[in-house]
Amino acid sequence: MYFFRNDYSEGALPQVMEALNRTNLCSTVGYGLDPYCREAAEKIRHRFQCPDADVHFLVGGTQANQTVIAAALRPWEAAIAADTGHINVHETGAIEATGHKVCTAPHVNGKLTADAIRAVFAAHGNGKDEHMVAPKLVYISNATELGTVYTKKELEDISHTCRELGLYLFLDGARLAPALTSPGNKVTPEDLAGLCDAFYLGGTKNGLLFGEALVITRDSLKGGFRHAIKQRGGMLAKGRLLGLQFSTILDDDLWLQAGAHANEQAARLSAGLKDLGYDMVVDSPTNQLFPILENGQIARLEQEFSFEHWAPVSDTHTAVRFVTSWATKPEAVDALLAALRR
Amino acid sequence: MYFFRNDYSEGALPQVMEALNRTNLCSTVGYGLDPYCREAAEKIRHRFQCPDADVHFLVGGTQANQTVIAAALRPWEAAIAADTGHINVHETGAIEATGHKVCTAPHVNGKLTADAIRAVFAAHGNGKDEHMVAPKLVYISNATELGTVYTKKELEDISHTCRELGLYLFLDGARLAPALTSPGNKVTPEDLAGLCDAFYLGGTKNGLLFGEALVITRDSLKGGFRHAIKQRGGMLAKGRLLGLQFSTILDDDLWLQAGAHANEQAARLSAGLKDLGYDMVVDSPTNQLFPILENGQIARLEQEFSFEHWAPVSDTHTAVRFVTSWATKPEAVDALLAALRR
Amino acid sequence: MYFFRNDYSEGALPQVMEALNRTNLCSTVGYGLDPYCREAAEKIRHRFQCPDADVHFLVGGTQANQTVIAAALRPWEAAIAADTGHINVHETGAIEATGHKVCTAPHVNGKLTADAIRAVFAAHGNGKDEHMVAPKLVYISNATELGTVYTKKELEDISHTCRELGLYLFLDGARLAPALTSPGNKVTPEDLAGLCDAFYLGGTKNGLLFGEALVITRDSLKGGFRHAIKQRGGMLAKGRLLGLQFSTILDDDLWLQAGAHANEQAARLSAGLKDLGYDMVVDSPTNQLFPILENGQIARLEQEFSFEHWAPVSDTHTAVRFVTSWATKPEAVDALLAALRR
Amino acid sequence: MYFFRNDYSEGALPQVMEALNRTNLCSTVGYGLDPYCREAAEKIRHRFQCPDADVHFLVGGTQANQTVIAAALRPWEAAIAADTGHINVHETGAIEATGHKVCTAPHVNGKLTADAIRAVFAAHGNGKDEHMVAPKLVYISNATELGTVYTKKELEDISHTCRELGLYLFLDGARLAPALTSPGNKVTPEDLAGLCDAFYLGGTKNGLLFGEALVITRDSLKGGFRHAIKQRGGMLAKGRLLGLQFSTILDDDLWLQAGAHANEQAARLSAGLKDLGYDMVVDSPTNQLFPILENGQIARLEQEFSFEHWAPVSDTHTAVRFVTSWATKPEAVDALLAALRR
Repeated sequence: MYFFRNDYSEGALPQVMEALNRTNLCSTVGYGLDPYCREAAEKIRHRFQCPDADVHFLVGGTQANQTVIAAALRPWEAAIAADTGHINVHETGAIEATGHKVCTAPHVNGKLTADAIRAVFAAHGNGKDEHMVAPKLVYISNATELGTVYTKKELEDISHTCRELGLYLFLDGARLAPALTSPGNKVTPEDLAGLCDAFYLGGTKNGLLFGEALVITRDSLKGGFRHAIKQRGGMLAKGRLLGLQFSTILDDDLWLQAGAHANEQAARLSAGLKDLGYDMVVDSPTNQLFPILENGQIARLEQEFSFEHWAPVSDTHTAVRFVTSWATKPEAVDALLAALRR
Repeated sequence: MYFFRNDYSEGALPQVMEALNRTNLCSTVGYGLDPYCREAAEKIRHRFQCPDADVHFLVGGTQANQTVIAAALRPWEAAIAADTGHINVHETGAIEATGHKVCTAPHVNGKLTADAIRAVFAAHGNGKDEHMVAPKLVYISNATELGTVYTKKELEDISHTCRELGLYLFLDGARLAPALTSPGNKVTPEDLAGLCDAFYLGGTKNGLLFGEALVITRDSLKGGFRHAIKQRGGMLAKGRLLGLQFSTILDDDLWLQAGAHANEQAARLSAGLKDLGYDMVVDSPTNQLFPILENGQIARLEQEFSFEHWAPVSDTHTAVRFVTSWATKPEAVDALLAALRR
Repeated sequence: MYFFRNDYSEGALPQVMEALNRTNLCSTVGYGLDPYCREAAEKIRHRFQCPDADVHFLVGGTQANQTVIAAALRPWEAAIAADTGHINVHETGAIEATGHKVCTAPHVNGKLTADAIRAVFAAHGNGKDEHMVAPKLVYISNATELGTVYTKKELEDISHTCRELGLYLFLDGARLAPALTSPGNKVTPEDLAGLCDAFYLGGTKNGLLFGEALVITRDSLKGGFRHAIKQRGGMLAKGRLLGLQFSTILDDDLWLQAGAHANEQAARLSAGLKDLGYDMVVDSPTNQLFPILENGQIARLEQEFSFEHWAPVSDTHTAVRFVTSWATKPEAVDALLAALRR
Repeated sequence: MYFFRNDYSEGALPQVMEALNRTNLCSTVGYGLDPYCREAAEKIRHRFQCPDADVHFLVGGTQANQTVIAAALRPWEAAIAADTGHINVHETGAIEATGHKVCTAPHVNGKLTADAIRAVFAAHGNGKDEHMVAPKLVYISNATELGTVYTKKELEDISHTCRELGLYLFLDGARLAPALTSPGNKVTPEDLAGLCDAFYLGGTKNGLLFGEALVITRDSLKGGFRHAIKQRGGMLAKGRLLGLQFSTILDDDLWLQAGAHANEQAARLSAGLKDLGYDMVVDSPTNQLFPILENGQIARLEQEFSFEHWAPVSDTHTAVRFVTSWATKPEAVDALLAALRR
């Protein structure tokens, strides 16, 4: 069975496992106050050129989103997200569980636009109508849920809009490596640190056992954040595991290599799908593809390949999702393309 | 530097690391629906003789406590805990963050008593005074925060009291293995499953990289629990890591062996401390010891040993905490005793 | 200045004030356990023919919505509402503040449809996809935010759909009297009690100083509700004020008379507006009208009349809202029509 | 039946009812933006000599406590209260329902002390231990739950301690009028405004139908507060009712007259009780008395008098609570004393 189900189907990059094995019996203090975490934070501040940023390591994405948003907002303040945003759809109301509404705007290829942000803000009385929530934080993800990527211009427009309106900009980077290594991308790590108030570099979907590295650049969001992590159940006792893994993938830009590998395999698959004449839900330059297949063919493919159904398109056809990762072997793509040709 | 700081200062048991390395590139579905999790759950149901229990794997203790308690209670219902209880003191208000009060009773050597539960319940109008919260769940930990252990009789009394009063009994087993392997303990795994409505078997403090295995035996607490895990940010993408680790330590009762090792080293240390005439805050039969040392001596010991200050006892003396674990080498205990003799 | 701003611009019906004056120095117990509350509850159970219902008196609508929904749902469950629903737009995230998401469906003339409920439920995996909230309660208001009214058939369809899918049906009756007395309405009070699991009879917008009478017919929603009221800050010390007011308007169906008066004045105004050729946002049979006026005219009208701007329609025109009530004098309508004719 | 059950057993002062009747058919805008509220706010700012304060009108005490505390705190911050504090015991976990822990200290005659505040703060790592909540707000009530009153010196000590430690000081003044008119009291209205960051002047227990006037003097607590009120369900549609009532009792210090009347009747009753040799739980100079009576006598008294049982004292005796108010007639006190003499 070849897996195209997601980018967290396997364990970790060999270098990561090697580091874990090597340090297994070293003793450290807990809760992320150990030397590995300090070292990883330093590498991240350097790589993203944000020397004054606070860096925290969290286990997963929903936890990171929930903790950041709940810590940033006062009780009546809300987040703005695309209607397809992960926090709006696929986190079982984790944001609302902390007391905050998610205000949505229609996505454009999975992306939120500066105009949509302005419209949502205006529709809530510019944050001043006391009968409505006050939008205060913009949540975007890069790459998006649909595998699309923000251009540098789009990110700049969103960032400037947020600053003009007094909104925080928070970027979910669960799939940041594929975004930054996608063909044509011009957004650099340092751009991110400059344009966002907080963002995270995803590890779970990019070759770690688990972990997201949160970077907070806005001073007003820094205070009390370790209290916030602990309160939301996110303070890992053996925090060193997070620091060590990130420290490992920051060396030699291993994180970007892993993302680039995922993208390359996706690009091969995408090219093959297009050659074969398949329609796609959206044109994605990263490691998630959404081709539309005939239902009978889907059933046949599932004998050999594991992947997700995305959405029904007609009575006879369904959009599916193929995801590649650092662990996807070229021969798996070859096998899938061969099966699609049959 | 020898570490007696806690039982989560190192990575994982060699057998656990071996399993992680061996399966690293196997592909599985995510979120704990993989074969490793199924296998581990089955082993746990068998070991604790609760064939109908639901088993869930969570990353850490605060997360487990928060998720269980928030899922069990209606908004105005409350938990009862000893004033020393972890949920009352050391979780940054994680329970309150889900909307629930923790009603406390004075501890007796770190333990809650059936009488104290009755008193708290009565003081809240037996759950019927609408101006007060309605206590509905009793939280205990075994071993306790002070390293003490509930006798079988004590657990039975608490369990019967809970059933009589209509309260859930939830046992935090972050240090369950040391409790069950402590000298004189007569509580069996199957006793736990019979006496509690939910409990967990701790992995983080007993040789796993991380992880707590939650067992829910009461039917009314089972529904929707995976929704609850996801909403609180606790659903690990690579859930297999949890399943695999627990599956490994369930074989040959490796979890009990690890707990017994920690207890043995603590017993050696305890005996040495008593021989040397040190007072202890409490008499602990498990892997946490609380001797009272002179402040100058503490400063000298800290040159070579890492441990926590627990509480000041006088102007000149402080209670400290020495913790042993599966990873504590006998020579570390020898070294500490030698230093204490100096 | 004539007020068409809302239906809570004045104090209370003369009969209500008379009752308050008459009983002012009588002594009663507090918190709604007094004889006036008991009497009012009994009259409501009789009028709505639901002898087994629980009746609670709350001060306002947002409070009632928040208390009912938070009490009904488990943490990961959600409400379904029209996108125009009061809980979605105009309660400053009061529902989310209790931890619950509001799932929305596009409104049809301010109304939610049975089909829309099915679609939302299906889109959330029929409540079984643990990565999404589980819809569990349907919120509708009658009359709606746009002054429209559910037909008996529409209410029956919604109710049957809810029962089929295992959803609670909760009806916000802040403007129930205008709905039930609107031309062509065939929904009776007893229909409501039979079709809904909980609903309230609004007093604030129908001639009381304040107050909403909540009726809970579903047994599983009854337990602990007084705890819920107190916890959400809604338990009025002098609860008697609520009971007395409702007891007063239940006599001789004074509540329906008040609603009918509001509707009659609105109907006169609506007929006049149509004669004058004004377009309306929606055709409303109750006490809220939404004509589209030219901006200059709006400015002139505001010299003499108080009313709300609803939404801009074009660069030159704006939809406004005219609201009538029990307190609207026929001469006020005459004056407004005269001014519109100018 | 004479009522000594509480100070909210009747309607409102005659002057308040007169004002409500007089203005009943005046039309105003809603939600507290009307001229009556503006006028009342101005009178309060003048009376308490805090020209820059924000004044908000809320319906009840639990609502006021919950709204203020939830608006003031970040998620991991906590309130400090006496263990007898209303928010700790008698609000059904309303504070916890907004996500915040109430840290308690043992009361001294119902009062919190500056030393106790320091001790709680220190025990939480001075707000810097991320494994514990960070205390950030001190809640006191004056008069207290036991009818006792803070001296000016005690209030100053608490205020200075709060400022030194960076804590907000919030004073629940549900029974402020009795406190300020109690024999020997030297705290002036302007003292309160100077010493507290927020406080409220209670109306519900001092002759209004309902209402608490919240005064916020600390600038950092002002922003967004109307959003907070709405979100917690506390924004009264006919907010004018609150403004008008407070405007009425601010004239000629009617609020202080009402409090003084309650105290005088209590003082007569207290003197009589002492003459008769009854023990009291605490020596209260305000309108709540806690004598200890024999159980048989209690049963006999309850034939003619309504009052609350406070706490059992022995097998044969119980502490009860007698409360007087603006509405207590001297002859009721005479009757009660006569009955006690029997």
